[in-house]
Amino acid sequence: MTQQQHQPRPGDGPYTVRTPRVVAARRLQRRRDRDAAGLFLAEGPQAVREAAASAAVHEIFGTTPALARHAELIESAARAGARVSPVTDEALAALAETVRPQGLVAVCAQRSVPLEKALERGPRLVAVLAEIRDPGNAGTVLRTADAAGAGAVVFAGDAVDPYNGKCVRASAGSLFHVDVAREPDPTGAIGTIRGRGLAVYAATGYGETDLDELADTGGLDGPTAWLFGSEAHGLPEELLAAADARVRVPIYGGAESLNLAAAAAVCLYASARAHRAGRNTSE
Amino acid sequence: MTQQQHQPRPGDGPYTVRTPRVVAARRLQRRRDRDAAGLFLAEGPQAVREAAASAAVHEIFGTTPALARHAELIESAARAGARVSPVTDEALAALAETVRPQGLVAVCAQRSVPLEKALERGPRLVAVLAEIRDPGNAGTVLRTADAAGAGAVVFAGDAVDPYNGKCVRASAGSLFHVDVAREPDPTGAIGTIRGRGLAVYAATGYGETDLDELADTGGLDGPTAWLFGSEAHGLPEELLAAADARVRVPIYGGAESLNLAAAAAVCLYASARAHRAGRNTSE
Repeated sequence: MTQQQHQPRPGDGPYTVRTPRVVAARRLQRRRDRDAAGLFLAEGPQAVREAAASAAVHEIFGTTPALARHAELIESAARAGARVSPVTDEALAALAETVRPQGLVAVCAQRSVPLEKALERGPRLVAVLAEIRDPGNAGTVLRTADAAGAGAVVFAGDAVDPYNGKCVRASAGSLFHVDVAREPDPTGAIGTIRGRGLAVYAATGYGETDLDELADTGGLDGPTAWLFGSEAHGLPEELLAAADARVRVPIYGGAESLNLAAAAAVCLYASARAHRAGRNTSE
Repeated sequence: MTQQQHQPRPGDGPYTVRTPRVVAARRLQRRRDRDAAGLFLAEGPQAVREAAASAAVHEIFGTTPALARHAELIESAARAGARVSPVTDEALAALAETVRPQGLVAVCAQRSVPLEKALERGPRLVAVLAEIRDPGNAGTVLRTADAAGAGAVVFAGDAVDPYNGKCVRASAGSLFHVDVAREPDPTGAIGTIRGRGLAVYAATGYGETDLDELADTGGLDGPTAWLFGSEAHGLPEELLAAADARVRVPIYGGAESLNLAAAAAVCLYASARAHRAGRNTSE
């Protein structure tokens, strides 16, 4: 057998870095190829489990020990239609972007929904990530929004691709739990959201409205969308102007500001608490 | 002049990577040398400004353009006793741990205080970082604790060195605002804190007490210390047992948990809000 003919097929032993299916999957590390294919990569057993639960998995690449270690997960994904492909350690390392991928990488279907459709489901809490380019920050806020009960997270304007590997990892599975919408025009998105009756608040350290006062005066009781901007540049002027209020998390000590993940957590959980209190009152 | 004699002195032009003062300062990138000298490095104009404001600066290394750009800051630090040392670009890059250090690195005095002393000042809010080894996480929680009005942050057990460069940077100056205490024995620290009349709550996703219920029943109205564990391993059993309650941030969506920075932000701000409401009521 010559070098050129060596293209393993199923049953031939694990796929290598040169197997066409592996080569094609690796291309999904690039946004252009993700966009074209409507697919993305999720690493590690936790992400693969969440992906399988939402029926998003097309194919699972795994080292032989990892496939054995997670046999139950692999079987349930396979029953749901996922292809299972054993790969060499080297191929797995090439598919993964982390140092310790724990032996599994899945090719998943992107699951973005149009904003209008996400809003039709009547979410009480929405997070809008406007121009947030840092994938770790975006993924972390997505995770926090999910935890706080948000039904939709909007990646607006020139925000990072939600299917960027680092964003997927930082979301810790939450990408598979909430409606993710991508809106190139953030001002348009705000209009659409407000048209559905949600209050729109811009989170900013320079806001004229104090978060606690907003909560105390009932401003968080109804359906709410929070706008978050990038850590480095904050929210653009036109989005600050388009919001119903510009809201600051109060700073009690000497810190100049909170980082994005912390500020988003405080704002989103202030909404969650107000919604919960409202439910308790009406019971 | 031979190569060996080439040791620039003040007035000789900028220091190089081989100037003994630069060589000595670079060693502070290592914990052992920081511990021995009681010094640490702070990078960038924001950190240098905060350090200068708390009179912690021994020496500022800066490129000639950076020293000119921040002339006012440099002058005020010099008036407060800091030595100002021009360095070459190469020397600055060697002193800095970031890609874009903005031209300034300061040698600062470590400012840890004994826990007892920090507690004597009567802080209403304390954060205890137990066995948190990730410097970015520790610095972020330190910053959030400062913003929420904490008077002291305790690095307990085998936690990261608060003067680790990445921790200093993530704290965004907050290292200079709050009392930082280092306690090798976390259980002992909890005893000391409780002895001062603070309620001690362990933040854990598996807590039996819901954060909102704790707030609603007045559990956060008095002086409070929050225990936070590492993202990977959580809090050790003995610290969970030593706390007055194990408190969970409620999860409303599909997320399994919050990351450390988000969970700490929600807990610390729940305390800040309870303290503020208490102050408003008693007015």
